Amino acid sequence: MSKEISQAVIRRMPRYYRYLGELIDEGVERISSNELSARMKVTASQIRQDLNNFGGFGQQGYGYNVQYLYEEIGKIMGLNEQHNIIVIGAGNLGQAIANYVKFEKLGFVIIGLFDVNPKICGRKIRGNPILMLDEIESFMDGHKVDIAALTVPKSEADAVANRLVKLGIHAIWNFAHVDLELLDDNVVVENVHLSDSLMQLSYNIVKSKNDN
Amino acid sequence: MSKEISQAVIRRMPRYYRYLGELIDEGVERISSNELSARMKVTASQIRQDLNNFGGFGQQGYGYNVQYLYEEIGKIMGLNEQHNIIVIGAGNLGQAIANYVKFEKLGFVIIGLFDVNPKICGRKIRGNPILMLDEIESFMDGHKVDIAALTVPKSEADAVANRLVKLGIHAIWNFAHVDLELLDDNVVVENVHLSDSLMQLSYNIVKSKNDN
Repeated sequence: MSKEISQAVIRRMPRYYRYLGELIDEGVERISSNELSARMKVTASQIRQDLNNFGGFGQQGYGYNVQYLYEEIGKIMGLNEQHNIIVIGAGNLGQAIANYVKFEKLGFVIIGLFDVNPKICGRKIRGNPILMLDEIESFMDGHKVDIAALTVPKSEADAVANRLVKLGIHAIWNFAHVDLELLDDNVVVENVHLSDSLMQLSYNIVKSKNDN
Repeated sequence: MSKEISQAVIRRMPRYYRYLGELIDEGVERISSNELSARMKVTASQIRQDLNNFGGFGQQGYGYNVQYLYEEIGKIMGLNEQHNIIVIGAGNLGQAIANYVKFEKLGFVIIGLFDVNPKICGRKIRGNPILMLDEIESFMDGHKVDIAALTVPKSEADAVANRLVKLGIHAIWNFAHVDLELLDDNVVVENVHLSDSLMQLSYNIVKSKNDN
C-alpha cells in the first residue's frame, strides 16, 4: 500500500469503523452509502469518495457488506495486530488511559505504567503495577512495546521521549502540550493537545453567539 | 465577525497561540513569517495565508508584532473572557481535566465536578468537591456555566448531555466515544475521541513500516 492517502481521509476512518461496529451489533449486514450518509450525517458522495481511496468496497445498487467493510478498515488502520502500549506518567491522565477498557477491545493493550513518584510506585491499575521510570530500560529488554503514551509535564517531554526513542520506541501518543523535538525523524507521533481542543470549542462558542 | 473561516484554519490557531506564547516568554518582540515557519515547521506561505484570514497582522518586511498577534488570536479564540466549566463524570479522566492547571491560565475555570458514585462524593479536586449528579439542577441555578466536559460512559452520554442542554448548557466538550444526539442543534460540541486518535496512530505505524 504505497499510495498516499490524505491524513484528512484517515482521520475520518475511525468514525466509519465505529459506525460499522454499531451496525454489526444491530445485526445489519448490508448498507447503502445513502443509508450510511443519513446515520453519519456526512454526504453519500463523501462516503463513496472516502471509501474509494481504499479501492472501494461497495457494489453499485447493492450497498456495502458491513462486516467486510468493518474488517477491511480495521486492517487498514492496523487493528488486525495487537499493539502493546506503555504509559509514561501515571497521574490521573495516565491512569485514565490505563483504565480505558475500550482500547483493549481495539487491540491496544497496556502492558506497563511508569512514573517518577515513589509514592504511587507499586499501585496496580487493571493488573499493571506502576513502575519507577528508572526501570524502563530493563523493562524494554524483556517486552515488545509498540507505542508509548506520554503524559508527562511539557518540560520533561522531550527528554523522556528521546530516552524512549533510544530504547527503540517507534511510536509516541503524546499528551504533553508541546510538539516533540525528537532525535529520530522516523518516529510516528500522534498528539492529543487538550488545550487546543478547548480553544477550538471556545472559538465555536464565540462564533455561535455572533451568528445567532 | 460574520466571515466564515474554515475549521481547518481554526484548528491551527491554538498552535500559533502556543508558539507565540513561547516567543513572549523568550522576550521576542517581532518575528517574520520565515522565522515562525522554521520554528513551527509549517511553510511561511501557509502562515501568511492563515493569518490573513483574520485581516492579517503583519507588515511586509517588518514581521509580526508577537504580543499583538498573541492577543488578537486570543480574542478570536474567545480567550479574553473567562469560561466556567463543569465536569460530568469524576473518574480518572474527569479528575485529570479538573487537575490540569494549564486550562485555568487560558481562562477555563473548573467550577464543579459531578458523578453518580456516592463513594467519591465530597472528595476535593483542586478545591472543588465532587457533587452528586442529582445536585446539578440546583447548582445550575446559582452558577454561570459555559462549558460542560462530559466524561461519562457512551451509554449514558446522550441522556446526560440532553439533561444539561435542558438546563441551559450551550457547549459540550465530549469525551464519550459517541457522536451526541442532542435535542437542540445550536449546542456547540467539541469531541475528544481518544480511540480515534489511537487508531490514527496505529494507521501511521503500519504506513511507516510499509514505507521503510
